[in-house]
Amino acid sequence: RIDWISNIIVVVSPENIETMKSIIEKYGHKRVMVVQGGITRHRSIFNGLKVLAEDELSNHLLQKPEVVIIHDAVRPFVEEDILSKVVMAAKEHGAAGAIRPLVSTVIASAADGSLDHSLERARYRASEMPQAFLFDIIYEAYQKCTDYDLDYGTECLHLALKYCETNAKLVEGTADLWKVTYRRDLYAAESIIKDRLSQQVCVITDLKEAVAQVGFLLHESLKSRVKVEAISTSLSKNDSHLQNTLSGQCYNFVCINDKNCAIQETQQLVDLLEKSNIPLLCPVVLILVHLDISENISFSIGMEEIIRIKEFAGEVKKKNILVYGLLIQYK
Amino acid sequence: RIDWISNIIVVVSPENIETMKSIIEKYGHKRVMVVQGGITRHRSIFNGLKVLAEDELSNHLLQKPEVVIIHDAVRPFVEEDILSKVVMAAKEHGAAGAIRPLVSTVIASAADGSLDHSLERARYRASEMPQAFLFDIIYEAYQKCTDYDLDYGTECLHLALKYCETNAKLVEGTADLWKVTYRRDLYAAESIIKDRLSQQVCVITDLKEAVAQVGFLLHESLKSRVKVEAISTSLSKNDSHLQNTLSGQCYNFVCINDKNCAIQETQQLVDLLEKSNIPLLCPVVLILVHLDISENISFSIGMEEIIRIKEFAGEVKKKNILVYGLLIQYK
Repeated sequence: RIDWISNIIVVVSPENIETMKSIIEKYGHKRVMVVQGGITRHRSIFNGLKVLAEDELSNHLLQKPEVVIIHDAVRPFVEEDILSKVVMAAKEHGAAGAIRPLVSTVIASAADGSLDHSLERARYRASEMPQAFLFDIIYEAYQKCTDYDLDYGTECLHLALKYCETNAKLVEGTADLWKVTYRRDLYAAESIIKDRLSQQVCVITDLKEAVAQVGFLLHESLKSRVKVEAISTSLSKNDSHLQNTLSGQCYNFVCINDKNCAIQETQQLVDLLEKSNIPLLCPVVLILVHLDISENISFSIGMEEIIRIKEFAGEVKKKNILVYGLLIQYK
Repeated sequence: RIDWISNIIVVVSPENIETMKSIIEKYGHKRVMVVQGGITRHRSIFNGLKVLAEDELSNHLLQKPEVVIIHDAVRPFVEEDILSKVVMAAKEHGAAGAIRPLVSTVIASAADGSLDHSLERARYRASEMPQAFLFDIIYEAYQKCTDYDLDYGTECLHLALKYCETNAKLVEGTADLWKVTYRRDLYAAESIIKDRLSQQVCVITDLKEAVAQVGFLLHESLKSRVKVEAISTSLSKNDSHLQNTLSGQCYNFVCINDKNCAIQETQQLVDLLEKSNIPLLCPVVLILVHLDISENISFSIGMEEIIRIKEFAGEVKKKNILVYGLLIQYK
C-alpha cells in the first residue's frame, strides 16, 4: 500500500506462522517476510530486527534499512500520514513515537492497594504505535538491554533512551491508533471498517462527452460528503487505473453510460471485481445509471433495459454484489 | 434499579436540563434530581454535592447521606457489584475508586515535545469511575480546594488525599467501565447493549403440570448459555413478578402453553409489553410454543392455529415485536 516501505517483517507466534503465510499468499502481499516471535513483546521485536541486521538470517534477501518502523497488528487503522511523520522525526532525532492524550487519570497504587498519588493528566501521554527508529540505534539498544528488559519491558522508546541516550520525538497521532484489546474494540473496529467502506465511491463513465459531463457533475456534488474517485474509461479495455481502484478496497460504484449495452459493461465490471481479489466481507454496491439522450427511443425500450438489469441483479447478488439500475431520459 | 441508593443527583449543563427532565419523566425514573453543572468537571461535582449538604437547596427534600458515589454518564455499563464494592471500601477507608490496568504505556513529555521518561506500566493504573466517599470527607475536600483545583483538576481521589489526607482504596473494575469518548466507543456501546439483550430470555408457561415441565426442561438446557428467567403463571392474572421482568429490559420471550387460546395469551403479553414502557429500540422476540398433548385433535386443527399466529405476527410486527410460532404434537 505504501511504496516507500521496502520490506515488512511480520513477527508471529510459532502456532500462527502457517496461517499468516496463507494470508500473505491469498492476498498477494509483496515485500513481506514472516519471522517467529519470542515469548515477550521485546523478544519478538528483537527477532524481527535481527533478520534485518544479519544477512544470513534472511539469506541475503534483505538490506539493513536506515530507518525501521515498529508497529502492532492490534492497531489496524494506521495511516500513511503518521507513518511518514514518525519516520521523518526518527531521521532527525534517532527515535520517534505516536502519542495520544490520556483518556483517564493515571494513578500509582501503594503496596496495600490504596492510592499513593495521582498524575497530573495534562503532563502525561499514552504512548502508542507506530514508532520509528534509526535502525542502528534501536538495534544497539536491543543488543545492550538486559534479560529483565526483554522479559518485563513494554516500551521501545524507553530502550532507545536508556541504552542509546536518544530522546524520542513524540508525534500526536489520531484517535484511530487505539489498541484493539477488548471485545468492545472488535465491535468498534468492525463498525469503523464498514463506515469507511461506505465513505468511498468510484464513479465510472465511458468516454462520450455528455456522459463524462454527468460523471463530473456527480463527482462535484458528492465530493464534500464522501471520498469520490472518478474514472472515465472504456470498460472493455484493460485500464490499469481502474484495476488499481478495484483492488484498493472501494466497495461502491456508480457506472454511467448512454449505450444500450449497460448489462455487458456491468458484466465486465463484475468480472474485474471478481478477479481483483478484494475480500467480499461486505456487499459491493453497483449503481448503473443509464443515460438516454437520444430522441427516438421510446420509454418502453428503456423499461426493458431496466427489467434486464433487475434479472442481472438477481444473478450477481449471490456473489455479494448488489446491482441497482437508474434510467434517466431527457431531450 | 438499585434499591439501596436513596437519591440520584444528575448534574447537567444548562442547555440540557430540559432534555434530561423529559427523559426522567418519560421513563418514570424515581429518586432523581437534576442540578445545573459548572464549567469544569470539579465545579459540576461540587454543585451536586452542595444540594445534598445544604437543606435549602433541595427544599429539605434530601438528607445528607453517609456515603456518596460519584459516577460519569459516559460509563453506562456500571454494575451493582462494583458500586457496592466502592461503597463498602469508602465506609472503611473514607474514599474508594475503580481502577483498570493501563492499556498503553504512559510517558512524560519534555517541554520540547520529546520523551522525558516512560512509566513502568505495571506500577500504574487508570483511575476510572465509580468512586465513593464518606460524604463529609469529599465535601470538606471540595470546600477546601483552590480555584486552580476546580478549574484544572480531574481526579476526586486526589482532592480527598490532598485536603483530607485520605488514601483512597483502589478497587479493580471490569473492562466495561471504560469511558465512551470517541465515535468508535459509541459503536462498541451499541454492540454491547445488543449483545446483552440477546443473552437474556424469559420462559413463560401456564400452570398446567405438563407445560410447566417443558418450561423447566427448556430452562435447564438453556441456562448454561444465556440468562434464563422462568415464570409459571396465568397471563390473564395480574402477576407482579411477570410485570417486573417485562420492565426489566428482557427482549426475548418463549411462551409455552397447551390451550387453544395461544393467540389470546400472546395478545395479553403484547399488551403487557406495551404498557411496561420498555424502549423498543430493538425488536422484542416472542416465540409461542403450542404444546398439543390431547389425543383427539387432528393435525389440521394445529395448522389452523399456526396460520392464525402467522396473521397475528404480521400485525404486531409494526410494533417492533416479532412473533414466531411452534406447534409440538405428541401422544
